[in-house]
Amino acid sequence: MAHIDLGVDETEFPGIIGPMRYRPETAKPLNELAEVLLRAPHSMPPGERELIAAYVSGLNECTFCCGSHSAFAAAQLDQGMTLVDQVHADLDGAPVSPKLRSLLRIAGAVQSGGRNVTTAMVQDARAEGATDVEIHDTVLIAAAFCMFNRYVDGLGTLAPRDPDAYTQVAKQIVEFGYGQVPSRAAG
Amino acid sequence: MAHIDLGVDETEFPGIIGPMRYRPETAKPLNELAEVLLRAPHSMPPGERELIAAYVSGLNECTFCCGSHSAFAAAQLDQGMTLVDQVHADLDGAPVSPKLRSLLRIAGAVQSGGRNVTTAMVQDARAEGATDVEIHDTVLIAAAFCMFNRYVDGLGTLAPRDPDAYTQVAKQIVEFGYGQVPSRAAG
Repeated sequence: MAHIDLGVDETEFPGIIGPMRYRPETAKPLNELAEVLLRAPHSMPPGERELIAAYVSGLNECTFCCGSHSAFAAAQLDQGMTLVDQVHADLDGAPVSPKLRSLLRIAGAVQSGGRNVTTAMVQDARAEGATDVEIHDTVLIAAAFCMFNRYVDGLGTLAPRDPDAYTQVAKQIVEFGYGQVPSRAAG
Repeated sequence: MAHIDLGVDETEFPGIIGPMRYRPETAKPLNELAEVLLRAPHSMPPGERELIAAYVSGLNECTFCCGSHSAFAAAQLDQGMTLVDQVHADLDGAPVSPKLRSLLRIAGAVQSGGRNVTTAMVQDARAEGATDVEIHDTVLIAAAFCMFNRYVDGLGTLAPRDPDAYTQVAKQIVEFGYGQVPSRAAG
């Protein structure tokens, strides 16, 4: 049960979906931010950007966001959930490109606090081919999920335990995007 | 010096202003979110909502955001910077209303992690007269500043040391709001 009355059946509208329906004024910029960061045309494919969101949500131990964005990443990466699980379990050993690994390290630093991003981390990412926009967006995706995770958990919302629940939503996000299917928005 | 080339003179465009000019696609929803949360018509006056933003930014030790939103709160509270400083120094002893103190405690819990918000904290806020929307918005303001703080510091942006710099911007934010004066946006 969420801490406040969201006016929805949480088993039908779990996680961030309840708060987004409860307060559409804030849902609008939140969905727009997710759409720009995770789905708009970009040098990094949506699956990689979703992987950054999933990785940070895992570090924040946010069950709903981690389940959601792991599924959204898996649905858009050739290696699927196997790769996502490897990144969660062991970033150093996971079979991602050196560039993506260096960006995920920056994301992990942001999660623990913005000032933990070092010049060396940024130089490493740049040496692996990351552009300034990719570094910028990695920092902002990581920062944004430090918000989404706290929003979802700070309100005490329900997180489905069944992985299939997230897989179903992933199909809709991949097809329609954020904010286009209010009954099944992401978080 | 920021970690990436923001294309601006950071002494003129410090803190979040550089990244917002660098990436207008993400600046748009970020400014809209700040405007809805901190300035739109609401049962809580803007000064109190800015105080929540300032308090969280202080806990995150984000010099630019803490300086900015402390000045924005002070400019809109009768007791000015004296009260803002008291809240930063000692929330329990600061002369704020019991309702605002209970909401600031929820904001502090969100800062340290969403799951640290307890049913007892929410019940206390409600007993002091807080509405569900006020509790919702407190959680989201606190969560949003865990994003803004990480965005500003994760990119290694410059934070002015002179308090007057923030006071000058406060006048513009109070008059024009977020996103209306791109050269002097807030963060």
